[in-house]
Amino acid sequence: MLDVCLLGTGGMMPLPYRWLTSLMLRYNGKSILIDCGEGTQIAMKEKGWSPKPIDIICFTHYHADHISGLPGMLLTMGNAERTEPLLLIGPKGLTKVVSALRVIAPELPFSIKCMELTEAFQEISFDGFHLEAFKVNHNVVCYGYSMIVERVGRFQTEKALELQIDKRYWNRLQKGEVIELEDRTLYPEMVLGEKRKGLKVTYTTDTRPTDGIAEHAAGADLFICEGMYGEPDKLSKAKEYKHMTFYEAADLAKRAQVSELWLTHYSPSLPKPEEYMGEVRKIFPAAVAAKDGRTVELLFED
Amino acid sequence: MLDVCLLGTGGMMPLPYRWLTSLMLRYNGKSILIDCGEGTQIAMKEKGWSPKPIDIICFTHYHADHISGLPGMLLTMGNAERTEPLLLIGPKGLTKVVSALRVIAPELPFSIKCMELTEAFQEISFDGFHLEAFKVNHNVVCYGYSMIVERVGRFQTEKALELQIDKRYWNRLQKGEVIELEDRTLYPEMVLGEKRKGLKVTYTTDTRPTDGIAEHAAGADLFICEGMYGEPDKLSKAKEYKHMTFYEAADLAKRAQVSELWLTHYSPSLPKPEEYMGEVRKIFPAAVAAKDGRTVELLFED
Repeated sequence: MLDVCLLGTGGMMPLPYRWLTSLMLRYNGKSILIDCGEGTQIAMKEKGWSPKPIDIICFTHYHADHISGLPGMLLTMGNAERTEPLLLIGPKGLTKVVSALRVIAPELPFSIKCMELTEAFQEISFDGFHLEAFKVNHNVVCYGYSMIVERVGRFQTEKALELQIDKRYWNRLQKGEVIELEDRTLYPEMVLGEKRKGLKVTYTTDTRPTDGIAEHAAGADLFICEGMYGEPDKLSKAKEYKHMTFYEAADLAKRAQVSELWLTHYSPSLPKPEEYMGEVRKIFPAAVAAKDGRTVELLFED
Repeated sequence: MLDVCLLGTGGMMPLPYRWLTSLMLRYNGKSILIDCGEGTQIAMKEKGWSPKPIDIICFTHYHADHISGLPGMLLTMGNAERTEPLLLIGPKGLTKVVSALRVIAPELPFSIKCMELTEAFQEISFDGFHLEAFKVNHNVVCYGYSMIVERVGRFQTEKALELQIDKRYWNRLQKGEVIELEDRTLYPEMVLGEKRKGLKVTYTTDTRPTDGIAEHAAGADLFICEGMYGEPDKLSKAKEYKHMTFYEAADLAKRAQVSELWLTHYSPSLPKPEEYMGEVRKIFPAAVAAKDGRTVELLFED
């Protein structure tokens, strides 16, 4: 139902065999990309996914390793004759940064809308899902994102029959539609049971651990979190550059009670992140040192 | 003596397994890069070469596939703690384009000097070599470049002895130095024979074939030329988008009497350029459908 692909797992600079950190999400015909560094479009093609149908690109912040791939991505979308508008979401300054970068991508056959985040927490609703953006703690303004797919309650036939609701409205009510009839209004709540568990993916990178992250990632099916350093003695470096160690990320995953943690955004000085996972899993057992292109299809329960 | 590496061979957009067209040249401790598209820094690392010591980056023009890798390249140089100034050379507008792109690479530990080309032909001299920039014919202002390494004549011992030149000056004269003595001035020409053949590499991409290209590439040891299309029926497309077919590039190589031709800047729609080389070699036998990372070390004769 919700396709998740971590296109790259690198931080700072792209390396041979390690693309920069970027996440692609696909749900119900919508495609969302979070961060777009140098090479992200290549990583996407390598995976067999196309940049053309991307509806939304979210940016955590404007360090080059998270946005330098934007001009090329836009041009590749344009070369594929895309005409659908594109929504960009990011911290304040988005319009300015995008305008500047478009000096090398001035002509596109589609329009671009920039939505600048202004609050510490913002919720943005789309058809069938919503995005939550929350401020994290880096050396520039930086946001984490959750993508949340809601799931309505189960349709209760007995209630619908009891309320004498015509069968032809059942499907629309199930989909959450409010239906105005001549004599009464039908609300989905009249026939739907309690909301069922939906799907949630949380993505944070370029930040120190914060209480906010643990809160906003709470209960996520998948928590994708930066782990710049695996070496335990690099905690001071992590603090200095406003990044995290693997252990700090694992602690956040534990506090947020997520189902699974994927580490990403490794320092270029860290060739084998998996070497440190023994210790990490002592803190949070469902932790994975993600590699480029790691993919999962998240399904609703039952 | 002159190391040449064609880091990528793609045009328009980077692909898995085909980096964008970019050329690296190394001579006598100097490194020159021509064009820097998305992924060029990765291609360079894949080859085992470092971006840190690049002295000069030349741009043919400002379409994204030739410059989108610049911000990342600058930051990677900065992360390597480079402090030496960097010279950028390109058509008019260079300062504006570089300033705009630096919105995501504002802080660097080294200075950047932009040299904008204003004439149809310009010669820029460095220690031991010079660059020639010549306008080509694309849909925006675009230049080709030659790197030319001069070679002085052979040292003529008998002349030096005849002119009673002290042996301690021989080496300096061989290196081209003019030496002021109390009683006379020693010129290199006094003891050097006729100039010997040097080395010349010419690089042109994103252009229709022009007489100027044949003239400026004349006698090159290596001519690296765009070949956007291999399919003979794509000549009209080549004309429309101001590119070349392989056969047009081969004809230029023949007219310029170069020693070898490397084709590059292939269309993404062309997965196997080598398939067309039979026909290309009928026009110019020393033609190669270059692949990413093709390298040669050009040596002086004898």
